Amino acid sequence: MSATIDRLAPVLNRIDSDLEAATGRLFDLLRMPSISTDSDYDADCDRAADWLVDDLASFGVEARKCPTAGHPMVVGHIGDEAATPHLLFYGHYDVQPVDPLELWDRDPFDPQIEDTPEGKVIRGRGASDDKGQLMTFVEACRAWAAVHGKLPCRITFFFEGEEESGSPSLVPFMQDNKAELTSDIALICDTGLFQSKTPAIITMLRGLMGEEVTITGPSKDLHSGMYGGVAMNPIRVLSRIITGLHDDTGRITLPGFYDGVPDLPADLAQQWDDLAFDHATFLGDVGLSAPAGEQGRTPLEMIWSRPTCEVNGIQGGYTGRGFKTVLPSRASAKISFRLVGTQDPLAIRDAFRAYVRSMLPEDCTADFAPHGASAASQMATDHPGFEAARRALSEEWPEAAAYAGCGGSIPIAGHFKDIIGTDAMLVGFACDNDQIHSPNEKYDLTSFHKGIRSWARILDAMT
Amino acid sequence: MSATIDRLAPVLNRIDSDLEAATGRLFDLLRMPSISTDSDYDADCDRAADWLVDDLASFGVEARKCPTAGHPMVVGHIGDEAATPHLLFYGHYDVQPVDPLELWDRDPFDPQIEDTPEGKVIRGRGASDDKGQLMTFVEACRAWAAVHGKLPCRITFFFEGEEESGSPSLVPFMQDNKAELTSDIALICDTGLFQSKTPAIITMLRGLMGEEVTITGPSKDLHSGMYGGVAMNPIRVLSRIITGLHDDTGRITLPGFYDGVPDLPADLAQQWDDLAFDHATFLGDVGLSAPAGEQGRTPLEMIWSRPTCEVNGIQGGYTGRGFKTVLPSRASAKISFRLVGTQDPLAIRDAFRAYVRSMLPEDCTADFAPHGASAASQMATDHPGFEAARRALSEEWPEAAAYAGCGGSIPIAGHFKDIIGTDAMLVGFACDNDQIHSPNEKYDLTSFHKGIRSWARILDAMT
Repeated sequence: MSATIDRLAPVLNRIDSDLEAATGRLFDLLRMPSISTDSDYDADCDRAADWLVDDLASFGVEARKCPTAGHPMVVGHIGDEAATPHLLFYGHYDVQPVDPLELWDRDPFDPQIEDTPEGKVIRGRGASDDKGQLMTFVEACRAWAAVHGKLPCRITFFFEGEEESGSPSLVPFMQDNKAELTSDIALICDTGLFQSKTPAIITMLRGLMGEEVTITGPSKDLHSGMYGGVAMNPIRVLSRIITGLHDDTGRITLPGFYDGVPDLPADLAQQWDDLAFDHATFLGDVGLSAPAGEQGRTPLEMIWSRPTCEVNGIQGGYTGRGFKTVLPSRASAKISFRLVGTQDPLAIRDAFRAYVRSMLPEDCTADFAPHGASAASQMATDHPGFEAARRALSEEWPEAAAYAGCGGSIPIAGHFKDIIGTDAMLVGFACDNDQIHSPNEKYDLTSFHKGIRSWARILDAMT
Repeated sequence: MSATIDRLAPVLNRIDSDLEAATGRLFDLLRMPSISTDSDYDADCDRAADWLVDDLASFGVEARKCPTAGHPMVVGHIGDEAATPHLLFYGHYDVQPVDPLELWDRDPFDPQIEDTPEGKVIRGRGASDDKGQLMTFVEACRAWAAVHGKLPCRITFFFEGEEESGSPSLVPFMQDNKAELTSDIALICDTGLFQSKTPAIITMLRGLMGEEVTITGPSKDLHSGMYGGVAMNPIRVLSRIITGLHDDTGRITLPGFYDGVPDLPADLAQQWDDLAFDHATFLGDVGLSAPAGEQGRTPLEMIWSRPTCEVNGIQGGYTGRGFKTVLPSRASAKISFRLVGTQDPLAIRDAFRAYVRSMLPEDCTADFAPHGASAASQMATDHPGFEAARRALSEEWPEAAAYAGCGGSIPIAGHFKDIIGTDAMLVGFACDNDQIHSPNEKYDLTSFHKGIRSWARILDAMT
């Protein structure tokens, strides 16, 4: 907050006048179907990385594409190496798959601005998660450089292309490039506004442990008339396993699962109560009326501070049109656990596998494929950057910024602390109804515009 | 058995010398992907019906294609209308879907003869179920007509193209064409040899009631980080429904489900014991070691005389490669019940739907789609044709023919009795390892060859 208003105002003006061009640049990035989890799109992920390198270079960033065993990283630097503070900004250029495609109202990779009753939105896969959010910071830096000829401090850009597929290359890359990525604070833009209107700085993030389990019974698909009643059906076995993961009060049954789950501190509980979370609207927007989780917890606790177990996908037997009286050889499910506090993702993976094995009847086997394992993160809210950012956000938005929890899992925050020794701060502008990971994803044009302005204000406040 | 050996021997010789040509004709039929459950293959079903009409006409049958609301029927007649007995032969020209296609060793609709350690087999979808079996009777009639210039009695051919998709047009068609289809006995070739070697005449058939159930929770797919723990997951609900369908002893829990399930008569239990069913081999062939069904029942009882509930398919959420942390809006399962005795399929459908609704938590709904409902059938083994056929089969095969149960569901048998007033007799030549309804379906060349010869002997014995 050492800066005067004079250096900020022209940057904000530049952002306003450049918004159409900024939207056009985002569209270029959105047109690339960089779906990281599906190898059919490997070349598109690579193209998106190239595009980012070129775009950063266009306003003076020394940027390069860094190969990994998976999709490439993009790393760029701008500003004097000795200048302080040194800010790092992280985002991801990969996106979620788009199925079921038939539920999209338009081509997910042909973005456009749509007028809706709630205002203009940018529609397309990645518009919000995370290409639109990533570009809010890039555009703020571009505007600052255009106005002032340079940035107000040293800035490192760090983009990955595997966030939606468990980030397998991230930790090795951070370990191998620790010196280059070391900075005073890491900024991450992959979260949302609280209740779609209040700017929020995230104070805690849930971890994630994912597993795909496949149950095999008979060695081949059988006729349910010839074998039904005498051969074990793997769909039944899998259903029993899934059913047994929760008890009647909504708690997860794995032994030791709640080890490391903290009680919610009274002061935080009070802060969250003060936010007056409107869970009726939050659920009503997606066709639900009642919180379905653990008994005795508030909805905000369930989302922000309690661990969960969800089945993200299940498949077995004949799933096409019509009917086929098959008794299938195999059934599989993708199951993920959101973790809090100091829950140990690898211990929970072990407990899950032991539980599954204990539920197998004779003649059935289980195979497992891991999909990511990251612990929950607590942010260092005593870092002075947090209070500077909170004030800057409060100036841009109609409501004062809040410290909030987050149900999602952004393992990178923990990696900055554990590997690089850098605290992370998460600020984002997504709305609850952005339909990230779902058909018809969108990003409010207001989120994009005020997001860019917010980062300019934060740059001003922190330098 | 009024015939002398003189009229049969030249027919059998003709069958032997014509086997290669007969196999070629079967291949022509197998090349048509007449998958009745998938409307993408409607034209192929129609072509298969046309082919059958032409093939029957080629040896003097007055055959025609009869349109229905679904796939066409083929009906043909040969022989003097007043001649007795009047035999009707039923088969189906439609086949099961072929997925998972990647598990086939060759194109399912490019049949060929393969040498295997157990002998030559005809490989392809429908080779056994039911095109190969259907053609055993057609070829026997063709050979008889070629040798004698006419058949030994009046014969009606009746082929449908919807057997693998619940036969929606069958009952209306039989009702509308009752007079034309009335006959002294209906022959059906859609069953197998007992233990792949003993010719068998079926004395009882299980019924079938199929339902597809879809559970809907949230109105759209959600992010499991944002909503996990507070929104009900329909995959969990569906798993709980499936799990609750069986108790710990393997019995089905629907109220009233066992109404009409008879005890196995002591004399039949003795006959079945005498068959010395080798369940270790039966299960071992498909990678299993232990019977998994109801406690306290023999494997043969489980398959032939007890009702079952199987999940034939399940699907929900993300099922592609990699991982997607979605909390899905919907999950669905295809579930079928095999029925015995006088179990009422429609009462069981009602009980199933009531059970599902009773298991729905707040905010979840269930939708149902019916897929067939047919009661079990008991055959009229006191009809003199049964004993004639048993003797004829015993002459063709190394082992004497047996009266056997059948785990499958062939509703047509019940319809002949209920609608037309005609008893049905089921004789077939499939082997347990034919992989019907599965990848790499095959029909032993021996089944095809001796099957044709068996029908010639049965025609001789019954006329």
